[in-house]
Amino acid sequence: MRIVLIGCGVVGQSFARILIRREAELAKNYGFHPRVVAMVDRGGAAVNPKGLDLEKMLSVKVEKGTVAASREYGRLAMSALDVIESVEAEAMVEATPTNIKDGEPGLSHIKTAFKTGKHVVTTNKGPLALALPVLTELADYNKVYLKFSGTVGAGTPVLELAKKCLLGDRIVSIRGILNGTTNYILTEMDEKRITFQQALENAQKLGYAEADPSMDVDGIDAACKLVIMANWIMNKKATLKDVDVQGIRKVTLQALEEAAKRGCTVKLVGSINDNLKVKPTEISRHDPLSVGGVLNAVTFVSEFAGEETIIGRGAGGMETASAILRDLLDIKHNLATTLIA
Amino acid sequence: MRIVLIGCGVVGQSFARILIRREAELAKNYGFHPRVVAMVDRGGAAVNPKGLDLEKMLSVKVEKGTVAASREYGRLAMSALDVIESVEAEAMVEATPTNIKDGEPGLSHIKTAFKTGKHVVTTNKGPLALALPVLTELADYNKVYLKFSGTVGAGTPVLELAKKCLLGDRIVSIRGILNGTTNYILTEMDEKRITFQQALENAQKLGYAEADPSMDVDGIDAACKLVIMANWIMNKKATLKDVDVQGIRKVTLQALEEAAKRGCTVKLVGSINDNLKVKPTEISRHDPLSVGGVLNAVTFVSEFAGEETIIGRGAGGMETASAILRDLLDIKHNLATTLIA
Repeated sequence: MRIVLIGCGVVGQSFARILIRREAELAKNYGFHPRVVAMVDRGGAAVNPKGLDLEKMLSVKVEKGTVAASREYGRLAMSALDVIESVEAEAMVEATPTNIKDGEPGLSHIKTAFKTGKHVVTTNKGPLALALPVLTELADYNKVYLKFSGTVGAGTPVLELAKKCLLGDRIVSIRGILNGTTNYILTEMDEKRITFQQALENAQKLGYAEADPSMDVDGIDAACKLVIMANWIMNKKATLKDVDVQGIRKVTLQALEEAAKRGCTVKLVGSINDNLKVKPTEISRHDPLSVGGVLNAVTFVSEFAGEETIIGRGAGGMETASAILRDLLDIKHNLATTLIA
Repeated sequence: MRIVLIGCGVVGQSFARILIRREAELAKNYGFHPRVVAMVDRGGAAVNPKGLDLEKMLSVKVEKGTVAASREYGRLAMSALDVIESVEAEAMVEATPTNIKDGEPGLSHIKTAFKTGKHVVTTNKGPLALALPVLTELADYNKVYLKFSGTVGAGTPVLELAKKCLLGDRIVSIRGILNGTTNYILTEMDEKRITFQQALENAQKLGYAEADPSMDVDGIDAACKLVIMANWIMNKKATLKDVDVQGIRKVTLQALEEAAKRGCTVKLVGSINDNLKVKPTEISRHDPLSVGGVLNAVTFVSEFAGEETIIGRGAGGMETASAILRDLLDIKHNLATTLIA
């Protein structure tokens, strides 16, 4: 499988590292022979139709700041869209940063990949939160796959658990702690009895929160993930504007203390029932959803199999990259099945 | 798909109920048209090559105690082995009780099904704990599938999470709370400060523990599940005798109180590293594995995707029956793929 990799940040580089480390096993266990024929970052592109030497490209990236600095294969003037349009490949891996204003540049990358017949694996929540119903239709129309396991739960297979492990059953509702940063802040407030502001500053010092923490603390990141689950798992045609979102800025120490008296704690819970909601919610400390620190947790309520909760780290470069690899293997498997049929 | 159902206890009856309730959806969503052509219980069999009326058979079972009492289709003298050998069907669902002495009668049912070319879905841990490596080989040799999702976690898709949701990754170790009864007893001891004996009696009153509680409290049920995971998920050729088992009879209130001082609690943990072990283990209350009541929880440590924990009820008729249905759909899907190829 020839792959175009757009975005060489932490996730993109981790993906390249996994491909290097698992080359032999992927060939042996799955008959999977990935060849990254192009890599693109903010500085330009590197292209080799025979497959780039990933080890070398990672060195160039680290030393020179851009893969376009490669002497043999660098293309300083080449944009991501140029690459997606002109380089022959079966799949595009899109790992540029999330932008929830207009979904760009990810949205254009994905649409262009579809148009040129490339399957898409993305870890970018922006295009999905804004336009997942449309993108799903476009993928169908162009007869390509759109996969995005890494967008919810990073390496933790939240979407796969729901879609692959509950065959024949029906998921009737979902609730989850979908953002590690806010969960860390709430856990710190609860355990150390510090204010939101103090906990936020700690999280920023540790690198868990951005300088502008709005995506996390205002619940937007969690809302994006909720939209993705609503579409993919529950067939709801929802986008970000359909989510009733409330962040954690107003959660007080007092609220946490009151909750504690009832054997409860306050978590930022995203829920899908009739409506999509993200808001600070009091839950029992005995609820499997009540996880601490940066962990994420999602509970699926199914008709027959009961309630299942999956817990894991919801972030991390290697973790997210492992989800990209899963998606590519899934596409390979689906193609094998469909081509034969 | 024609199905022979061996065992009409809580699980077998729940399975029949799910088939009735989901008939239309199974046809529409999966193209799945199950036909139960024979049912067997301790009193005999009922056989109809065109497919039994499940609603009627459940009434007969409830009213007369055995499906063999059916006027039209009952066969009082017919044994399970007779049925498996003589009735044409694509699959056998084996839901007789677990027996860890010699695995019978389940073991003979499964072997006979293989010999007559029937795929097997079982919820019976006995044959698997004693002979899973051999049974897997026999299934391969006879070119049939052997599935047993319901044996670990009941409706909670523990085995599927590991096998289907971590493609391309490698599970390096597993630990889990695999038995709801012992977890209930330990939770009660911890929270109500009562002794093992008192908690056991409460569990027996509530129906969570058997009159002879040995399978649960001596760790044997958990060990069976550990063997199944070791074989299926980690390719270890293990059987019950390879597990170092210690139950919870000797867990004292004092041990729980000491653990509490360290922010911990004591759980019956099964673990797979170099060895297979089931024993009372102190774990942090913040560990996702630290679930209360009758819940089960399993943590998979994977090379790239990190640690994932799945939590759910590990028992229940409907839940276990939903796992049987998943396995049958899986077999159907695999057959479609293989037949085409």
